[in-house]
Amino acid sequence: MRFSSLSSKRKPINIAILGFGTVGSGVYNMLIENASSITNKAGTTFVVKKVVVKDPRKKRNAPAELFTTDPWEVVNDPNIQVIIELIGGTDPAAKIVEAALKSGKSVVTANKELIAKHGSRLVTLARKKQLDLHYEAAVGAGIPIIQPLKHQLAGNDVLKMIGILNGTTNYILTQMQEHDAEFEEALATAQELGYAETDPTNDIEAFDAAYKIAVLASIAYGKQVPSEKVYRQGISQVKKTDIQIAKSLGYRIKLVAAAQPMPDGRILARTHPALLPISHPLANINDVNNGLCLQTDFAGDLLLSGRGAGANPTASAIIGDLIDVARNILVQGPASAIPYSGHQKMAKIEQLQCPFYCRLTAQDQKGGLAKIAYQFGRNGVSLRNLNLSSNPNQSANITLITNSTTLPKIQRTTQQLIDSGHVLACEALIMVEE
Amino acid sequence: MRFSSLSSKRKPINIAILGFGTVGSGVYNMLIENASSITNKAGTTFVVKKVVVKDPRKKRNAPAELFTTDPWEVVNDPNIQVIIELIGGTDPAAKIVEAALKSGKSVVTANKELIAKHGSRLVTLARKKQLDLHYEAAVGAGIPIIQPLKHQLAGNDVLKMIGILNGTTNYILTQMQEHDAEFEEALATAQELGYAETDPTNDIEAFDAAYKIAVLASIAYGKQVPSEKVYRQGISQVKKTDIQIAKSLGYRIKLVAAAQPMPDGRILARTHPALLPISHPLANINDVNNGLCLQTDFAGDLLLSGRGAGANPTASAIIGDLIDVARNILVQGPASAIPYSGHQKMAKIEQLQCPFYCRLTAQDQKGGLAKIAYQFGRNGVSLRNLNLSSNPNQSANITLITNSTTLPKIQRTTQQLIDSGHVLACEALIMVEE
Repeated sequence: MRFSSLSSKRKPINIAILGFGTVGSGVYNMLIENASSITNKAGTTFVVKKVVVKDPRKKRNAPAELFTTDPWEVVNDPNIQVIIELIGGTDPAAKIVEAALKSGKSVVTANKELIAKHGSRLVTLARKKQLDLHYEAAVGAGIPIIQPLKHQLAGNDVLKMIGILNGTTNYILTQMQEHDAEFEEALATAQELGYAETDPTNDIEAFDAAYKIAVLASIAYGKQVPSEKVYRQGISQVKKTDIQIAKSLGYRIKLVAAAQPMPDGRILARTHPALLPISHPLANINDVNNGLCLQTDFAGDLLLSGRGAGANPTASAIIGDLIDVARNILVQGPASAIPYSGHQKMAKIEQLQCPFYCRLTAQDQKGGLAKIAYQFGRNGVSLRNLNLSSNPNQSANITLITNSTTLPKIQRTTQQLIDSGHVLACEALIMVEE
Repeated sequence: MRFSSLSSKRKPINIAILGFGTVGSGVYNMLIENASSITNKAGTTFVVKKVVVKDPRKKRNAPAELFTTDPWEVVNDPNIQVIIELIGGTDPAAKIVEAALKSGKSVVTANKELIAKHGSRLVTLARKKQLDLHYEAAVGAGIPIIQPLKHQLAGNDVLKMIGILNGTTNYILTQMQEHDAEFEEALATAQELGYAETDPTNDIEAFDAAYKIAVLASIAYGKQVPSEKVYRQGISQVKKTDIQIAKSLGYRIKLVAAAQPMPDGRILARTHPALLPISHPLANINDVNNGLCLQTDFAGDLLLSGRGAGANPTASAIIGDLIDVARNILVQGPASAIPYSGHQKMAKIEQLQCPFYCRLTAQDQKGGLAKIAYQFGRNGVSLRNLNLSSNPNQSANITLITNSTTLPKIQRTTQQLIDSGHVLACEALIMVEE
């Protein structure tokens, strides 16, 4: 096919959308609203042939005849060239995507869990079949992250990547900080506004962020990162008092997701609440926004940020992928699915060197503070900041920030202090990013 | 060629580097230092066959036998598959790139002037020849901007793009702000550090930024933006006093480059100093860093930022492009050069509605301020901020920020005030971004 005929009429590309919730209908809307510019960029038009839904009787913003409840009807339809998979989860999504690729269809998906768990296998299959499997929407919604990492930054060694990759938890933490709210209140607000689901586990316990950093680390380090090997800690235990204390010390508490090679060559991937100094590029990424900092050897430090969730930003990424698929189909070219293979050897969180924020309650007894400070020192942990507030005859509150150390050293210290009775409880223990 | 054979040995790809200044030797270094990860990502190795330089006797970090002074030797060498064009300017770069494409070579370039002036023609030629012409390094060095705009964001209408796209001027303005330096001093420092050239015209008079915004606007709006139609004003007239006054009012002065569709469908592209409120995402992009804010209809607001200049970040973008070229060559696939055609109809700066910062010197006479305020009002310009400082028997200094208005209205007002003798001079007139 000659490129000089680019402006001539092309056969439209038939697509199917699997799943028609907010994102699915967002994709459908964008195809209609931006039809002329999408056609212009893709060099052809898209025709939505089928939409797979659970309940076909629900009122939706698309013609009723498009709807079906059977994903296999779509997979087995030889007229459909591309499927957009938005059903989420891995069962039956993995089987459907696999069958679609085997039957010669390219796939665009927003499914981070699918890619985190089956990415290596499915992308390799796509490549073998000379098809596309794109998933830009899986991380950071409309923020270009995945393809830039695969393409424009491909020549760099990624020294570290750290991001705020979950909009729901970022919204909750922002609410807790700005309205001095406890976690439960902020979660309720997020649920009212549709930013959190009725069962918020996937977001607040950081499964979503773990899938996302697994996907990014798989690309950056060239081997599939098993998502269950991502150190994962959610935000449900974060207290407003720690957010306010952190704020007074010049920090913000954010749910970060990070990956970096350790000195032994293994990759450490993790997601957990962390204190970020206000000068950190991620410290002012608030509400449902996402941001990713990349530290690279040649391109230096980069920040990519924007809205990380929602129907329209997610649709933006899916349509971008779809346009790329169309360009490949039009030129009868091979696909640009870039595989990574094998399993990455993963490091443990215990290897990470960083400062820690720690809040303790202690007996308000003479010399107690000296004993606590002594115990940290004995375990090789030095302190950069310590604050004691006590009321006579009551327990004392101690907040401290250590210099760079490790989780086992801190845990050993606090356990020894509890065992010896100098500390009643370790109320909070949060990593600090620098 | 089967993708399953990806791990098998591939024929290396022969390349030539045209121009071996800081960027050229940066590219060469990166190819060596990151050889294994580049090979892994590209699926093959690269062999530098020739390096074109002006003076082959100069000591350089590459074997002497690679060097030649004749670019046509490279263009006519059938063994070379890709050229990296780093000679800059349009003559002879345009002829060389055209000849290279015609002889079947893909091209990677960092040359913003070349793309701004000949992009449409050269990319169309590349497409016709099923070759690549990539230029990620032309804007923002290592920050992924051009390809994300072409691919991941392709489905969006870009409502506005505004960026800090020139590292030299951003360094100078940051110096002026942080060290209370005048332009000439800050320029001298930038020159000492190698951030500004001996003849700094291209940077400080914003030719460089104009080329860059022309390139970005051509992609975003699908038609070649003539770079001479970009409204252009450099930073050589910016005074430290205005930077300090702006700072006291909560603003930073930055050289911005922006493009946006106007209500009549024409595109306004411009580069000039502007006051940015400190809450603006670009206000804290300092030193040689670059940043681009994209306002899009579906993806929302995005910020892409990082180091916008220097050998390594520029090399990063070039190598990213080179890896993409290699992937296309390996699969004998068509290229991904995405053409834009025709000439964009451009709007004039006079159409822009925005607030203005204005500093006037006036006769210190009774009722003078009232007359000045009256004249602004008569021309339909309302003020949001006015500050008068005067010494008896001396001229008065008036700084003001208007509400949203147009350049002709402000210019008419100040001219009338000068003509009537109420104002001695308009010392500064700078647009304000909101």
